[in-house]
Amino acid sequence: MIPERLALLREQMRKDGLAALIVPQLDPHQSEYLASHWQARRYFSGFTGSAGTLVLTMDKALLWTDSRYFLQAAKQLEGTTIELMKDMLLTTPSIKSWLADNLKEGDTVGVDGMLYNANMVNDLQDELSRKGIKLNTNLDPVGAVWKDRPDLPLDKVFVHQEKYSGESASSKIQRLMEDVHRHGASAVFISALDEIAWVLNIRCTDVKYNPVATSYLYLSDKENILFIDPRKLTDEVSKYLTDCGVRTEPYDALLTVLEQLPKDVKVLVETSKTAKKVADTLGDRVVSGPSVVAYPKAIKNPTEIAGFKKAMERDGVALVKAVMEIQKRLRDGVETDEVDVADILRKHRSERELFFDISFGTIAGYGPNGAIVHYEAEKETAAKLQPTGLLLIDSGAQYLDGTTDITRTIALGTPTEQEKRDFTLVTKGHIAMAKAVFPEGTHGVQLDILAHQFLWKAGLNYLHGTGHGIGHFLNVHEGPQSIRMNYIPSTVELNMVTSDEPGLYLEGVHGVRTESLLLTVLAMETEFGQFYKFEVITLFPLDLNLFDTTIMTDDEIAWVNDYHTMVREKLLPLLDTEEERRWLITATGTLVR
Amino acid sequence: MIPERLALLREQMRKDGLAALIVPQLDPHQSEYLASHWQARRYFSGFTGSAGTLVLTMDKALLWTDSRYFLQAAKQLEGTTIELMKDMLLTTPSIKSWLADNLKEGDTVGVDGMLYNANMVNDLQDELSRKGIKLNTNLDPVGAVWKDRPDLPLDKVFVHQEKYSGESASSKIQRLMEDVHRHGASAVFISALDEIAWVLNIRCTDVKYNPVATSYLYLSDKENILFIDPRKLTDEVSKYLTDCGVRTEPYDALLTVLEQLPKDVKVLVETSKTAKKVADTLGDRVVSGPSVVAYPKAIKNPTEIAGFKKAMERDGVALVKAVMEIQKRLRDGVETDEVDVADILRKHRSERELFFDISFGTIAGYGPNGAIVHYEAEKETAAKLQPTGLLLIDSGAQYLDGTTDITRTIALGTPTEQEKRDFTLVTKGHIAMAKAVFPEGTHGVQLDILAHQFLWKAGLNYLHGTGHGIGHFLNVHEGPQSIRMNYIPSTVELNMVTSDEPGLYLEGVHGVRTESLLLTVLAMETEFGQFYKFEVITLFPLDLNLFDTTIMTDDEIAWVNDYHTMVREKLLPLLDTEEERRWLITATGTLVR
Repeated sequence: MIPERLALLREQMRKDGLAALIVPQLDPHQSEYLASHWQARRYFSGFTGSAGTLVLTMDKALLWTDSRYFLQAAKQLEGTTIELMKDMLLTTPSIKSWLADNLKEGDTVGVDGMLYNANMVNDLQDELSRKGIKLNTNLDPVGAVWKDRPDLPLDKVFVHQEKYSGESASSKIQRLMEDVHRHGASAVFISALDEIAWVLNIRCTDVKYNPVATSYLYLSDKENILFIDPRKLTDEVSKYLTDCGVRTEPYDALLTVLEQLPKDVKVLVETSKTAKKVADTLGDRVVSGPSVVAYPKAIKNPTEIAGFKKAMERDGVALVKAVMEIQKRLRDGVETDEVDVADILRKHRSERELFFDISFGTIAGYGPNGAIVHYEAEKETAAKLQPTGLLLIDSGAQYLDGTTDITRTIALGTPTEQEKRDFTLVTKGHIAMAKAVFPEGTHGVQLDILAHQFLWKAGLNYLHGTGHGIGHFLNVHEGPQSIRMNYIPSTVELNMVTSDEPGLYLEGVHGVRTESLLLTVLAMETEFGQFYKFEVITLFPLDLNLFDTTIMTDDEIAWVNDYHTMVREKLLPLLDTEEERRWLITATGTLVR
Repeated sequence: MIPERLALLREQMRKDGLAALIVPQLDPHQSEYLASHWQARRYFSGFTGSAGTLVLTMDKALLWTDSRYFLQAAKQLEGTTIELMKDMLLTTPSIKSWLADNLKEGDTVGVDGMLYNANMVNDLQDELSRKGIKLNTNLDPVGAVWKDRPDLPLDKVFVHQEKYSGESASSKIQRLMEDVHRHGASAVFISALDEIAWVLNIRCTDVKYNPVATSYLYLSDKENILFIDPRKLTDEVSKYLTDCGVRTEPYDALLTVLEQLPKDVKVLVETSKTAKKVADTLGDRVVSGPSVVAYPKAIKNPTEIAGFKKAMERDGVALVKAVMEIQKRLRDGVETDEVDVADILRKHRSERELFFDISFGTIAGYGPNGAIVHYEAEKETAAKLQPTGLLLIDSGAQYLDGTTDITRTIALGTPTEQEKRDFTLVTKGHIAMAKAVFPEGTHGVQLDILAHQFLWKAGLNYLHGTGHGIGHFLNVHEGPQSIRMNYIPSTVELNMVTSDEPGLYLEGVHGVRTESLLLTVLAMETEFGQFYKFEVITLFPLDLNLFDTTIMTDDEIAWVNDYHTMVREKLLPLLDTEEERRWLITATGTLVR
């Protein structure tokens, strides 16, 4: 099947005069998760991972992906004629240098200019032009040959009520435009779907787990335009948008409308996130700058914070019920696999008030599967739980008033010394981060070692980020803040919600991760300025059986006990049965040496 | 005096057609410390601080400097007609925006293109050209009117013997040229004086405390040229350079010789550190890239490391003798001020083998003076020591086999609770850094919080860097590594020597800093890669009277005791008298709760 699809693509490439074609895992909105319409890389390669790029020449087909997906990709590429290129290994060339090395002068490389942004195009062009290779961003062979391509989603847009969002779209637009003017512009173009959803207080179901609507937004002193398929709009939403001062144009009229904008309008564009073709169409109107939405969206308002906290209570109750059910099935000898775990979690969450959806594919990894960082169990291959070993559950939900994201590692039997040591080293890092105090202006990279330090001292490590931002009834991963080993030029601000999720993954053994969400709050103001600290807002106990108190300080033990007291006080009144209350009281019992 | 000098400068500016002139604290080598020949900013402003820029227009004279120097500058600028611009405050415009706001279209700003590098010029030009203001980098009004300008130093160059440097100049040149080729170049131009000194194993006394020779170095596949005043070269050194394959040209023939280089030679230039005029003269020959000397120089070889450790022993012995002498004078009631402290330190160091000079101006700050970060006592105003309060001593020496840099804070009487708390919070950070374990590839910004964390939790802070590199019988401050709150894109590598110097400065109260030097060594290699740790190589006790053990962990107390045991074992056999040995045994006694 894949070879036939590649043959069609090559035929089109020949017609288009392309020696090579890049099929990236991207949409025009630089989304993390893509609507199926944009899943060309998946369609033409058969590889289903969330990251990876297909490169096709007349005689070669190559797929670059990163270490999370080496095993999966190797399996899925069997029989496709596509070679796996293990990204980020020193021995693997980058796509651009592979192209430069394997094409000849005068050849043309194609990539869709609605998918690559200007920075990506420039970067590629620099490398290719050194070898006399051309780049064409105006062709779309994928669109031409993909016959059964899924339509763009026609899901209906709905309004996210102000009682949840805490600020009207008009107020947000006014705030943003003030910032736009500070950047010397009179308009702004926004293509990030979560940014558009946040600005207009609209939501939709276009992208799995991410409640966003496929659209572009143009705001200016003169007019505000939402580019969206009109079939997605109910009368109510159309009227709402009009009331907000926003008119609509069809999604596919984007370039035509942008072209006709007045020549003298200065449009602020985040060029690192905006399609090359859009930037080209705006031409001299472009004022390059940062997103004016990223910080306002990440800094939650009091209504959003209150909503987050209520959502955490509901999520905690759902998790108590879910974990009790899983434990009961184990006790009763009812066969339970990793997919059942995900289903049980979803069932209990979906019974809670204001539940909308889960916020990402549940990762339930039992035993060695817990060591696969982006594991998503499938029914045929899912591991069956036994009364031994570790179960790692990373899950979350979208509630209308907030989004959750929590990871707990649970011992299904009596834990071994290694299981306890690994859990405790990871959780000591989680605690150190949760207890951090830091001055205004601190970057995530400065905090990261708090979570890594105990693992490093034992010669252990994890390579994923320690903390990401969480949208409010929006994408579970958002910026600008990021706590990780590499430098990202954005700061951790008051009222941001950030995850705290160190982990440890021992191939073939087990995986451990402890994750709660942290709200940045003011710690104190002194002659040295403002200092911030974190408040843990996630409400679910850590597995008391997994702590090795011999490698914990008194302060760490006290932190666990304080956290558990808080969880108990918040969740106990919300539970339904005496059995649940007994379970919670036991699960939040006092940790002693 | 200053007003007259400024009048002369303005007259020249008028002749040159300049509406404004920038007089920076820079030399053509981007040195941290300047030979007096380059101290134009000091000469024309009267301000003696190590950082600051004078900007002169026909009716205004302004001096930008940072918070370290606000008090000093205010005092020194009295009566000069120069206004103080407090740099880095939000209310203070940058120099470029002040110029853009205060000059008119068509005006010309002058700055010496041998002092500003290409990046600085571009940055300034961008801002000015937006307002239609021109920039001229080819004029030198300062040189024209500075009548009694000190000559360039004529100190004699000497060879730093291979028994100290551990690698011949020829071997270094060969290693560097391999890296130059990797950057696609066939030559490299080096203007940093410490880099030239390191490459050629030459030293001199041109810059106070920095044993470097004023020169430029050009290395290529065809020829190697040292641009230096021939009067600085003895016959022996001339022969040595010839033997190394390096010919010399006069220092002031630089641009002429560079202009005549073959058109097709590709010269690697670190544009952020190279004079604009040099880059312009090289023109199309420039290949922009990083320094190829920075890492090889910072990563010490076994001979350099062994030398550092021997130098530390001598320095420790000198400090024992010096501190004993200071304490004895206090006991005996001999009047002793901060300048005496510096003199006593220098005297004892200068009596040690291989002593060459001190490595920077000693900071001896008693009581409130300790809170002035870059304090250098002067005889007229130096504080007299009393048997109470804290004395902060930051000092170091250049020995032929290594450079030292150490800060100790000493209680002169029975310390107060606050003195103990402040010292202990600072020193806990020092200890946490010294105990760090981290993977290969770690940047300084990732480690910094280890030193800051305890202060931040108490709402305290220090704003200077936590750790800088130290040259080997070279500049006491060197890169590329840097442990600090902001991101610097260089890593902490094996065999680098880096300072660990958290501090706390309470205005009008006291200053605390604890600084030792750390050598990066291999901690372990595991399935997660290589992990590094630090070995403390500075040898002098921390003041046992200043520890507040109630806020220390057992691990921290054990670290202090281990460190003191090591110091005692290394220094005891090297002391001369029973009294010294008794002092050291007491000073390194066991810290208990």
